[in-house]
Amino acid sequence: MRVGIIGGGQLARMLALAGYPLGLEFTVLDPAQDACASVLCEHICAPYDDPNALSQLAEKCDVITYEFENVSLEALEVLAETTAIRPPLTALAKSRDRLKEKTLFQELEIPTPRFLAIDSHQDLETAPKILGWPFVLKTRQFGYDGKGQHVIHHRKDMEDAWNSLQGQPLIAESFIPFQREVSIIGVRNAHGQIIFYPLSENVHKNGILHTSRCRLGDSQTRPAEVLATRLLDRLDYVGVLALELFEINGRLLANEMAPRVHNSGHWTIEGAETSQFENHLRAILDLPLGTTEAVKHTAMVNFISVLPEPTDVLELPGVHLHTYGKTERPGRKVGHATIRAADNKILDIRLHHLLALLP
Amino acid sequence: MRVGIIGGGQLARMLALAGYPLGLEFTVLDPAQDACASVLCEHICAPYDDPNALSQLAEKCDVITYEFENVSLEALEVLAETTAIRPPLTALAKSRDRLKEKTLFQELEIPTPRFLAIDSHQDLETAPKILGWPFVLKTRQFGYDGKGQHVIHHRKDMEDAWNSLQGQPLIAESFIPFQREVSIIGVRNAHGQIIFYPLSENVHKNGILHTSRCRLGDSQTRPAEVLATRLLDRLDYVGVLALELFEINGRLLANEMAPRVHNSGHWTIEGAETSQFENHLRAILDLPLGTTEAVKHTAMVNFISVLPEPTDVLELPGVHLHTYGKTERPGRKVGHATIRAADNKILDIRLHHLLALLP
Repeated sequence: MRVGIIGGGQLARMLALAGYPLGLEFTVLDPAQDACASVLCEHICAPYDDPNALSQLAEKCDVITYEFENVSLEALEVLAETTAIRPPLTALAKSRDRLKEKTLFQELEIPTPRFLAIDSHQDLETAPKILGWPFVLKTRQFGYDGKGQHVIHHRKDMEDAWNSLQGQPLIAESFIPFQREVSIIGVRNAHGQIIFYPLSENVHKNGILHTSRCRLGDSQTRPAEVLATRLLDRLDYVGVLALELFEINGRLLANEMAPRVHNSGHWTIEGAETSQFENHLRAILDLPLGTTEAVKHTAMVNFISVLPEPTDVLELPGVHLHTYGKTERPGRKVGHATIRAADNKILDIRLHHLLALLP
Repeated sequence: MRVGIIGGGQLARMLALAGYPLGLEFTVLDPAQDACASVLCEHICAPYDDPNALSQLAEKCDVITYEFENVSLEALEVLAETTAIRPPLTALAKSRDRLKEKTLFQELEIPTPRFLAIDSHQDLETAPKILGWPFVLKTRQFGYDGKGQHVIHHRKDMEDAWNSLQGQPLIAESFIPFQREVSIIGVRNAHGQIIFYPLSENVHKNGILHTSRCRLGDSQTRPAEVLATRLLDRLDYVGVLALELFEINGRLLANEMAPRVHNSGHWTIEGAETSQFENHLRAILDLPLGTTEAVKHTAMVNFISVLPEPTDVLELPGVHLHTYGKTERPGRKVGHATIRAADNKILDIRLHHLLALLP
């Protein structure tokens, strides 16, 4: 069986590493000659929406999946007539547009920050009246790792943000002074079976995920699962889905979803009986799902912009290095490490040592 | 860093799967067009002793290792003048010849079955007088998975074996009615640091490894480590080495060694904090060794000749499938599964379910 992946970055790379032991083979579509999955997968080097490249991918592969949301929906819709694309394109269509996504959350009674569409400067004038100060102005599409987002504290910020973002479809959301960010990662198969990983607690820095920690027995697990289940069922979803949530005063508010394997689930490679990557492949190929139970206590640290010295990382007990084979560049995710320990106290110590290696 | 591997089979494949997360890249040398590591590694398709192919490999790679012993020693000796080859060729030279291997064991006071070189029919006539009946006649070179071995119960067997094996260098060994077979897997780095995995208890069927089980706290662990340490130090070894031993009446007798990652250590992928594959790479690249402690209770089952239905395997909790992407063929290792459990009782049950799937 051959799996086609749109995008040849680190998520595709980790999908392939999880899939070879299952006897799968992989072809990635990525315009970058040095796409980091290309060293271990067949590589079609072409734009993501190149019709010839896409039909070449479809011809070679038994199923097509994607590693990021900013794919041309129109191009994939043509492909979907002849080839299985999983997760379903309805999920992609919702998740790639923050307004559609939040509207879906609302329909499913999944609590979210208050929001409104901003199509004009007049809409923007209305925003603080409805949302209060501060609020957040975001592009509806193509945002990731905090890109295309402005926190607006006063009128001057508002005009600066407008000058920077106008001309694109926008959304304004109330600013949530959350106590913490969590994500729930679930996997659903074509028969409607759903299982969840333990809750991840996430810390972002400069809009980019910095650490995730698997929180066994967290009291927000069940509430988060209930919300994610509504999404998975409504979308008739197949594969792994991540739902990011803010916790404020004991309540969960949905921030966004990702219809794919997710950075906050990288700890599952060593920390869960079956990783999110393997379970995504199992789901899209209609193989039995693997158990998601935690193996030990686990946390994950992202390496942003630069890698620490590998020797220093490998010297730490219980630490597992994952480099992506990408050129270092400011703000770029170039690797991560998973830390595993028998209890949370040892995990804290190991995490402390690992964080001390970051520049 | 690029690692060159002589041989592109399942061991090379699993080395590559362990090495990509460390940021390594791989080139394998294998004459088979469909060598199973070639789907995820650069592949030089040429005979193992092709001088041009070998120097091409050396030019591309920072270090060269090998996944089996039947490599041309002469060809590698030329290469070793310019390129790091690890484990050292002295280890390869000993392990590829049963007589040299057993003689080394003897020198190091590592107990072995009694043995003698068989260079003529006259030597063979002497064998039962020295070793008693039954005894084992083996080729000194190119034996694996029980190939080139005859158990000789009486004179008629002896003549049959002679007719089948004569013309090759041979060794006769006393037949050991052992209680069990175990192996100790150790890793040594260039600075002389040595660490061991928990002892593996192994069951062979028709000369091929069938199951290995990690035996935590086994009383033979320390005695086995003492013997393996003598080998690792004497050979100034760098990398993973496996020493297979018979246990008889509480005593260990060395059967053979393998200067490479070993089938009886496949359980370490899920069962140890750092797998044998990752630790072999760490050692040969002079990176810090990873801890070898067990993650849970683990066993490994080989899939010989045919794979069970993947769906059936993946349905079992705690079971991890590893297929090698090889064509099924009688007596060929085509995959394995690791079973992990919180205690030995659950492991027994899971092992029972998995074994029930074998043809």
